[in-house]
Amino acid sequence: MRASTEVGAVLARESLHAALADPALEAINFLNEVIDRHPTAISFAPGAPFAELLPDLDLGSRFDRYIAHLREARGFDDARIRRHLYQYGPSRGLINDLLAESLRRDEGIEVDPDDLVVTAGCQEALLLVLRALCRDASDVIAVVNPCFAGIAGAARLLNVPLLPVQECGDDLDWEQLETALRAEREAGRRVRGLYVAPDFSNPSGAVLGLEARRRLLALAQREDLLLLEDNAYAFTAADGSGIPSLKSLDSDRRVVYLNTCAKICLPGARVGFVVADQIVVDAAGRRSRLADELATLKSMVTVNTSPIAQAFVGALLLEAGGSLAELARDKAARYRSNLRHLLGALERELTPQPGEVRRVSWNRPAGGFFVSMKLPVAADADLLAHCAAVHGVLWTPMRFFHIDGGGAQALRLSCSYLTHEQIDVGVRRLAGFLRDHRVGGFAPAQALEGVVS
Amino acid sequence: MRASTEVGAVLARESLHAALADPALEAINFLNEVIDRHPTAISFAPGAPFAELLPDLDLGSRFDRYIAHLREARGFDDARIRRHLYQYGPSRGLINDLLAESLRRDEGIEVDPDDLVVTAGCQEALLLVLRALCRDASDVIAVVNPCFAGIAGAARLLNVPLLPVQECGDDLDWEQLETALRAEREAGRRVRGLYVAPDFSNPSGAVLGLEARRRLLALAQREDLLLLEDNAYAFTAADGSGIPSLKSLDSDRRVVYLNTCAKICLPGARVGFVVADQIVVDAAGRRSRLADELATLKSMVTVNTSPIAQAFVGALLLEAGGSLAELARDKAARYRSNLRHLLGALERELTPQPGEVRRVSWNRPAGGFFVSMKLPVAADADLLAHCAAVHGVLWTPMRFFHIDGGGAQALRLSCSYLTHEQIDVGVRRLAGFLRDHRVGGFAPAQALEGVVS
Repeated sequence: MRASTEVGAVLARESLHAALADPALEAINFLNEVIDRHPTAISFAPGAPFAELLPDLDLGSRFDRYIAHLREARGFDDARIRRHLYQYGPSRGLINDLLAESLRRDEGIEVDPDDLVVTAGCQEALLLVLRALCRDASDVIAVVNPCFAGIAGAARLLNVPLLPVQECGDDLDWEQLETALRAEREAGRRVRGLYVAPDFSNPSGAVLGLEARRRLLALAQREDLLLLEDNAYAFTAADGSGIPSLKSLDSDRRVVYLNTCAKICLPGARVGFVVADQIVVDAAGRRSRLADELATLKSMVTVNTSPIAQAFVGALLLEAGGSLAELARDKAARYRSNLRHLLGALERELTPQPGEVRRVSWNRPAGGFFVSMKLPVAADADLLAHCAAVHGVLWTPMRFFHIDGGGAQALRLSCSYLTHEQIDVGVRRLAGFLRDHRVGGFAPAQALEGVVS
Repeated sequence: MRASTEVGAVLARESLHAALADPALEAINFLNEVIDRHPTAISFAPGAPFAELLPDLDLGSRFDRYIAHLREARGFDDARIRRHLYQYGPSRGLINDLLAESLRRDEGIEVDPDDLVVTAGCQEALLLVLRALCRDASDVIAVVNPCFAGIAGAARLLNVPLLPVQECGDDLDWEQLETALRAEREAGRRVRGLYVAPDFSNPSGAVLGLEARRRLLALAQREDLLLLEDNAYAFTAADGSGIPSLKSLDSDRRVVYLNTCAKICLPGARVGFVVADQIVVDAAGRRSRLADELATLKSMVTVNTSPIAQAFVGALLLEAGGSLAELARDKAARYRSNLRHLLGALERELTPQPGEVRRVSWNRPAGGFFVSMKLPVAADADLLAHCAAVHGVLWTPMRFFHIDGGGAQALRLSCSYLTHEQIDVGVRRLAGFLRDHRVGGFAPAQALEGVVS
């Protein structure tokens, strides 16, 4: 509890930066309040990793593993190891070689370790890329909509305008995309990049097929823009079913590849990374890589990613033989199992009774943390508060993830951190909620005659 | 070494954000190149902590210490400890209570733990404060000049204009400050804050006296601006000689207090913090604190500071009985000893010979990492390259730290990470450099007749 004395400097909120006045923030605060107010509700809201998959508490042995690697593979002595772990380190990072090797082995992405920047989570990587690419107010970033709230947050903080590109199921609305790009060009604005999470996107769970990926790469080349690929949930694909990442298909350095170790290793490390092998040329013809520029910008944001945090991730990676995919294997299986369980429970509990018509629908992703569900009414804060209080189950309004005010009648269900038993109970409560008269997710068949054509 | 194939997307540097085109960056790159090119030179350039003061490699026992604290003082069980260390945590931080308690004991600063935000180093704290306070291009931050390069970097990244306030020895140019504030107001701009490092400033080593601090607090109230106090080097003051921090003198919530654990604990943790107890009121009269707003912005930059890194700092703090000052005691003594040694060596080696006049001068701080030296010629990149190649000693041109193009004929000497022996050798080399004809730091007395009035 805070001290109650309230003397002294007072700042008007409207005098602060507009990123703090965004309605999305109020919405998120509201969501958090609802969660706090209903601690016994089953929550399909947060996309946090499953607690039982977190490593054991023996941190010491992990660091010993990484220190042994520094000694054996890199020939460091104690003094050098101490400097490596405890001193300021390079902005670019310390475990770039391990991450680059993992990309080569897991995804066939050949990348120079120096073209990779280790960041304080993927969020910082997003911020750095937006900052580097957008010079002024005429520079725009296109974003597949709905999108991860972090890209919208980074853009707001930097005053970078976003251009929504509509997702249509497991594809994009190509016509809208081409039209929007043309309109921006005609208005004198430059679309510098297109942010896309092609694999089990947060929030929708959508996956872009191989053909759509190739089409995006061709479009990026034609329109001279970069693709900002967020790979956060690709690891959840079943063995052999994953579609090649944009970066692994990229022969023209069109893709800036962003990833996080939060889901694969652990969130508490706050380690992410970005691959940016694009060539930068100045007026005198001197060349650098976009990664060099991102590292420079990073020196103005966090200086360098904690070496201790990097060492922890490095140790986990070494334990898994240097492969993020190997490290992710058990976790991915657990998340797929959770998702199958959620989809099974939805199928079972939301089957219409005889004489009843279902007015809710949802997608059936094969991976990721999220299912997207459409309702016949607005899935807003009021409805969420009602659902929590009366039905004891929580979800996230999909409009939190829309940058154009859309998504009013949809919600996101996350199953990443629940047990199967919690999922079963949660879905039963959800079925009650959907049959609530405020939602009208099921209706008598005859009542809809003349409504459904 | 990077792959030599250079096909694919090419970005023109001038199409990237202007923070990447800043001449200061080129200068810093140049400095780093010079350092790399002369590995055997004695370097008075970097302000890094002394290597022998870094903790031993037994990381496991440190985490055990922090885990024991969570168990005993906070009653956490294993599952909760795992979540605390490994999951996403609150943007505001995890060790706020330990840091707030340390501020109370060490500095008499009474602060609610919730009014403190733990950041990924002090650099992120600077970025968050600038972002929160500056709404648009008409918002300006005043900066005591010369200043820490990090504040200039954060401002460039956010397009925040800086207003230089001249430092004069151990005081400010109050007339210039008042005139500048008036001019900004008349031009329709709002000066939102004044960044100042009152204790052994980086780069100059200057200290603001108690009277100047009170004057600054009164000015802040009168002009309705906040003081952004960077406390990074205050810990190096000799016992009993420290001047109260601005925050400890602040009865009007005028001071946003910034600090880093890099020097006191270790740089590799990348943990800093900011105290922002200012009241924020929205149009509907709802109140929050500036710290709440900074935590919200942090969710758009790095989400949260690595719990593992925070745990490491928490463990060090617990080992020192909960006091940053206690934790810093031995380090501070070492840095003061280095500084005394440097100042003694300068006095000894730079005493004019009979018939010789000294044309260089320097200040004599009682703490901090830095000494500021004035030359009769420009201390620029060319001179540095010459000094490194011919005399085997390195320093930092002071103009790197000036935001107004000043400081041309001055350099910064840092002694934080050198041994006494290295300092002795370095200062002898520096004496040779200053007697070099390109510098002319010493001249025959008669040659100056008619020059010096």
